[in-house]
Amino acid sequence: MKIENSTLKKVLKKYREISLLSHIKATLDWDLNVNLPPLGSETRAIQSSYLSEMITNKWLDTKFRSLYEKAVTEKLTTVEEKAIIRNLGYGAKYYYNVPKDIIIEKDKTASEAFIIWRQAREENNYKKFLPSLTKLIDFDKTIARHLGYKDNPYDALLDLYEPELTAAECERLFNGLKKELVPLVKKITKSKDYSNTVSFVGASNHYPTPDQERIVHYIMQHMGFNSQAGRVDISAHPFTTELSRHDIRITTNYKETDFRESFTSTMHETGHALYEQGVNPDYDGTPLASGVSLGIHESLSRFWENMVGKNPIFLHSVSPIFKSFYQKQLHAVDEKSLIQSFNTVQPSLIRINADEVTYSLHIILRFEMENELINGNIQIKDAAEVWREKSKKLLGVASATDAEGILQDVHWAYGSFGYFPSYAMGNLYGAQFLATMKKKVDFDAVLAKGDLLLIKEWLDTNIHQYGSLYFPKELIKKVTGEKLDYTFFLNYLTEKYSRIYNLK
Amino acid sequence: MKIENSTLKKVLKKYREISLLSHIKATLDWDLNVNLPPLGSETRAIQSSYLSEMITNKWLDTKFRSLYEKAVTEKLTTVEEKAIIRNLGYGAKYYYNVPKDIIIEKDKTASEAFIIWRQAREENNYKKFLPSLTKLIDFDKTIARHLGYKDNPYDALLDLYEPELTAAECERLFNGLKKELVPLVKKITKSKDYSNTVSFVGASNHYPTPDQERIVHYIMQHMGFNSQAGRVDISAHPFTTELSRHDIRITTNYKETDFRESFTSTMHETGHALYEQGVNPDYDGTPLASGVSLGIHESLSRFWENMVGKNPIFLHSVSPIFKSFYQKQLHAVDEKSLIQSFNTVQPSLIRINADEVTYSLHIILRFEMENELINGNIQIKDAAEVWREKSKKLLGVASATDAEGILQDVHWAYGSFGYFPSYAMGNLYGAQFLATMKKKVDFDAVLAKGDLLLIKEWLDTNIHQYGSLYFPKELIKKVTGEKLDYTFFLNYLTEKYSRIYNLK
Repeated sequence: MKIENSTLKKVLKKYREISLLSHIKATLDWDLNVNLPPLGSETRAIQSSYLSEMITNKWLDTKFRSLYEKAVTEKLTTVEEKAIIRNLGYGAKYYYNVPKDIIIEKDKTASEAFIIWRQAREENNYKKFLPSLTKLIDFDKTIARHLGYKDNPYDALLDLYEPELTAAECERLFNGLKKELVPLVKKITKSKDYSNTVSFVGASNHYPTPDQERIVHYIMQHMGFNSQAGRVDISAHPFTTELSRHDIRITTNYKETDFRESFTSTMHETGHALYEQGVNPDYDGTPLASGVSLGIHESLSRFWENMVGKNPIFLHSVSPIFKSFYQKQLHAVDEKSLIQSFNTVQPSLIRINADEVTYSLHIILRFEMENELINGNIQIKDAAEVWREKSKKLLGVASATDAEGILQDVHWAYGSFGYFPSYAMGNLYGAQFLATMKKKVDFDAVLAKGDLLLIKEWLDTNIHQYGSLYFPKELIKKVTGEKLDYTFFLNYLTEKYSRIYNLK
Repeated sequence: MKIENSTLKKVLKKYREISLLSHIKATLDWDLNVNLPPLGSETRAIQSSYLSEMITNKWLDTKFRSLYEKAVTEKLTTVEEKAIIRNLGYGAKYYYNVPKDIIIEKDKTASEAFIIWRQAREENNYKKFLPSLTKLIDFDKTIARHLGYKDNPYDALLDLYEPELTAAECERLFNGLKKELVPLVKKITKSKDYSNTVSFVGASNHYPTPDQERIVHYIMQHMGFNSQAGRVDISAHPFTTELSRHDIRITTNYKETDFRESFTSTMHETGHALYEQGVNPDYDGTPLASGVSLGIHESLSRFWENMVGKNPIFLHSVSPIFKSFYQKQLHAVDEKSLIQSFNTVQPSLIRINADEVTYSLHIILRFEMENELINGNIQIKDAAEVWREKSKKLLGVASATDAEGILQDVHWAYGSFGYFPSYAMGNLYGAQFLATMKKKVDFDAVLAKGDLLLIKEWLDTNIHQYGSLYFPKELIKKVTGEKLDYTFFLNYLTEKYSRIYNLK
């Protein structure tokens, strides 16, 4: 990558320190989740926030800021230069528009809120969390005002997590989606072939960790994960992180009563990792390195987890591997049951346990709640009840307890309003990518042969390599030739589950 | 700990950042040795030197320096306050006396020298390393001049690694030592009972890693390692590091052909770890935290490794554990052979493989070489030959190759002249501590019962808790009532090996 503009060169030189410090902080955070002995957590928090403050100060550094502001006014010629200055603006937006005391106050409130939320959830006591939630919503309204917006304050927040996403866009997509998803779920769960019991997992079954580890390494290698430039470890909640351009780490978790989770969650995280490993190496240390957004990231991880990992043809091709490791446990299991077990559709209360079909409904619920809360259309004190009603309407189930309702997720306790929709966007992006991929790649044949590298190569060429060069809207257009459309995802689900459950 | 002096309080507040950054850097270095995927090393080096530079800049910060210089002139009352200001001076000495361009130039030369040294060792080509070695010795002469010294420039370098240690002191101790050690080694290896073959280790034997791991965890727990505040991992070369006051990590290495190494090296590293875990918690983040010197640290690690771990009475008490894990491998091994196998004395070429008796001779060789090289008493081009002569004289063996002679250690390639003697000082300190401990603790009875916590408690009370409050000379005096004397170590060796080998 050639940078011609001399001001931009200077900005990039300073930006490298932000990148360096962020990677150092990522290493500490990775270690926190993978290794940290219990008594080390207090000091680790101090180390981590020390680095965060250093990063904030680099953004606020007057020299850096004035160089950036000068670069904005200059004539930039290449696509890369323009994308760099756009991404810098996007990254700086929060620091430059929101007064520092508000940032600090919100962070402090969120730290306290996290502890209160945890207690409130344990005690199933929404009222206890109410004051914190109220404060955090107020903060986010204030922040939205500082960031600026056209129609809806919630737009300013959405944009923090998924560039250019608006509430109106979410509404268009989600309304279309829910109209079809709700009946589809009913159709599946009422079908003759439907079953939600899995005979070969649970307390009386044992899948030793070392066997699961071998399968995890096997699938990562087959997906094309470069183990010279990354690794896999164990943590309570699987995640992916970039410690440097050539050090992309994923984690997984082994449940000895069920071999499926480590398998599909590893495919999910490896999907994130392949994105990071596939970015053009020239972009290292610039604002073009790394995946462009949470939504695009999630589209790739969910693509590998669901569209590949739980695909019946793929499961047919890997089932001999499962059966060779788990001969005793699986000998009486026919292939149809195995495939259905990976694709059980079951409306449930808890988002993180949701299947591929109902998952988006959980997100739509949260989007609607957030949009109304930020706009003051519902009273915060009534929100637990509104949650219950929406859950009933969207999923057909509602929890008697708030612990399994409005208090289930940590996101609001962090004050991360606007984050949730990116999860559902991932599903939509992914299905649209798949439809395009199928025009060039004989997807079914590739899965039948287990030749996953061909899929990785398509993703490398069409998506991974660009890193943050294109914002999601532009990327979707460039890759698929059209703007985002929820029907790709709907068609994908309808086709897949019609086949699995013999729907008419 | 109560700090009364307000200037010192301000210095300490700033020093906390140095401590914080050093711990962050330690985390990166730990990860480098334990986890880093091969392609990650280039960026990790950049991250690490970025943090190093930040730490250097904190020391050189004019505000910090002037506060420190003000504190020096003020009246400090408590032992802690005085020790803090002394340690700050000791830590700052290198930064404040050696011009920054020399520090940078030497670091650069050392980085290059490391690569050349590795090649030279591979090719057994001392001449190739000669120019780098010459430059590094010149740098260290210059550095010694900037640091200042009374009699011998080498004193200034020794003091960097072991406070207040001088070449004259080394000479006094080492000359006494070698006069007795050389004949002792001969006496042992010529004794009727002597054997240097170990029947139960090597290529045809297999000690599975999981069994060794269980024993490692067992011994760490019995030594009193707090696993809530630390952990054990695997690395090529075992080491101990402090990531924070409550996060002390050791590593070990499992050789499946020999179970003894992971056992004794874990005891060694746990010895380091217990020191760090035992420091008065009030000292956290101040220059009193952490062990006082390399020599004192090594005295504790070698104490646990050799004086406890290879003690015949202790080996008698743990041999049932070895035999229960390695029933098949050890069933024909009598206890005498087992004990001798842990205590085989064998003059050899390579320092890191040396036994407890010959080890100090390797160090004496290096001390004499360094002292003469820094004083220009031998030509650098002749050093490989001088090494050979000294090796013959001290150890009775000399290598035909320089790879196994002067090129064997990495230390000179780093430009670390003055480091080696601290290893031998550790042996001397340790034996003197042991002699004192035996006045209060029935050492043999404790080992017979395997009640290692009693030993740890004595060390906690008498040594660990003080951290860097006392410099080595003062600590030795305080703990043992006398100044350092090499005869404790000699007596310890003579007594132990006379018993094992039935010497007359």
